[in-house]
Amino acid sequence: MIPSKNNEKTSPSYDNLFVQMCNDSLPHLGYKLDKTKPVLYIVTPTFARREQVAELTRLAQTLLHVRNMIWFVIEDATKCSPMVGDLLDRFQIPYVQMLAPLPEIFSGQSQKPRGVSQRNAAIQFILSQSNPPEGVLYFADDDNTYDLRLFEDIRTTKKISMFPVGLVAGSSHSSPILKDGRLVGYSDPWFGKRKFPMDMAGFAINIRMLTYNPDRVAMPFMPGYEEDGFLKGLNFNWEDVEALAENCTKVWVWHTTTIEKSAPTFRFEQSDTNLQSLFQELKHTGLIKQSDDGPHLPQCGIDKYC
Amino acid sequence: MIPSKNNEKTSPSYDNLFVQMCNDSLPHLGYKLDKTKPVLYIVTPTFARREQVAELTRLAQTLLHVRNMIWFVIEDATKCSPMVGDLLDRFQIPYVQMLAPLPEIFSGQSQKPRGVSQRNAAIQFILSQSNPPEGVLYFADDDNTYDLRLFEDIRTTKKISMFPVGLVAGSSHSSPILKDGRLVGYSDPWFGKRKFPMDMAGFAINIRMLTYNPDRVAMPFMPGYEEDGFLKGLNFNWEDVEALAENCTKVWVWHTTTIEKSAPTFRFEQSDTNLQSLFQELKHTGLIKQSDDGPHLPQCGIDKYC
Repeated sequence: MIPSKNNEKTSPSYDNLFVQMCNDSLPHLGYKLDKTKPVLYIVTPTFARREQVAELTRLAQTLLHVRNMIWFVIEDATKCSPMVGDLLDRFQIPYVQMLAPLPEIFSGQSQKPRGVSQRNAAIQFILSQSNPPEGVLYFADDDNTYDLRLFEDIRTTKKISMFPVGLVAGSSHSSPILKDGRLVGYSDPWFGKRKFPMDMAGFAINIRMLTYNPDRVAMPFMPGYEEDGFLKGLNFNWEDVEALAENCTKVWVWHTTTIEKSAPTFRFEQSDTNLQSLFQELKHTGLIKQSDDGPHLPQCGIDKYC
Repeated sequence: MIPSKNNEKTSPSYDNLFVQMCNDSLPHLGYKLDKTKPVLYIVTPTFARREQVAELTRLAQTLLHVRNMIWFVIEDATKCSPMVGDLLDRFQIPYVQMLAPLPEIFSGQSQKPRGVSQRNAAIQFILSQSNPPEGVLYFADDDNTYDLRLFEDIRTTKKISMFPVGLVAGSSHSSPILKDGRLVGYSDPWFGKRKFPMDMAGFAINIRMLTYNPDRVAMPFMPGYEEDGFLKGLNFNWEDVEALAENCTKVWVWHTTTIEKSAPTFRFEQSDTNLQSLFQELKHTGLIKQSDDGPHLPQCGIDKYC
């Protein structure tokens, strides 16, 4: 059972969620999709931070190797980021950029249900399409690392596929356990009485799965139980689970985590050098904050040995 | 001046350095190089850690977009890693895999000169070739993030090129300062009385620069002064510096840092499930350590709600 929609704390109704389109490149780039073959729906929640531009660039350059996909990039923000939009435009991958901020009700919580609004917004967008192309949905956070073989593999998903994830929560992995090719259990550093003790990066579903019980398909706002709640809402049996990554003996996705530091604050640099434009670029990409009170950018002339 | 070679502490002589080839795929993949155009010599020091397989995969998939390059992957290790070798073989990028461990003299130091042995080994390898193809050398650590535009740009380097690096040491950037197109200084979070207050990822050199004064070209074993010592050993004038990344107004490389955690220790899993093979894979790729004393892999059966 997914948490009741009446429980505002775990599952605010969609009517209360703020969702907004930034730019839907599908009409323009949709011709890049071969709708006669399964399309990959890659869903990436993201939020503004000093490292965001680097992580999205890195992920985009991985996805640039993957054909026949739509990239859903959904920001935890109330305004569309021009940096994210510029970056997405440049790569010419068919994409949908949306906003779906964390509801304010959770803002005071110490453990925030991160990525939930964003993934739910993508699901609702897909369900709202009158005739979406056949394909496979995968939740790909922007700081993880993906072996290209993963994308080939998940495209074959008929109902639901599962596979190992490396570097989970300070331990080594999260993985389904298979015996004679059938799912018999899970190996995970934390079980938490979950029916599906799995990592967000460890499964993919055919988008037909969303349409069987559209009212039940949603991720709950419960830290630690997002995957479990989502999977419980899908209509599948244990026998439906398809084991990927060479029968779950390989690791083709890793939960890498980038060290985050807050962006430093500097004064606007009025300058007759490149620092004038560089400052704007650093500000645009979130590496710097501007304030009249901050220090000037550090500078040292050649041969000065500061 | 680079530190004297007599000073064993900062610059052990090459005779004392342990350097060993693991596998040189150049004879086999060299046909992929177009020697009539500048070749990129990408030098990546690496060391074994839980996150290494993910970082090398991510970097390899970025470099897979880059044509006409040789990838030097040099391990801080005394034995060639089969995992690194397998990974390099798979991508079909022309590569050289070598060992060049940190000399033991530095092993007790709190701030270790990381990557120095490895970069020096690559330089010596290039200098040892009788007729290396024309091209450009770039030091690309395995945890950084590279915008593909960087590689197009550095290939034009005639002598030495410089460009901004983002996310440097908790601050925003390290960059040359240019006025009317000429280098006039540097902006960096730490100057340290360096002639070249720059980041390792912020410059590229034409490999002809190595051959002018081969005895002087080496990176010193001085934490914080590796770049400075190396650049001082090259024979160039301020006027020789070529500003890249749209006249140093863009950031196309970021010093991202992945959170490192030590690999957990588990007992060898004798099992009739996929965990038997998965354990071997996790061990092979460094995500797990094996010990008879460790706990078994955590397991929970389906419908058990552990």
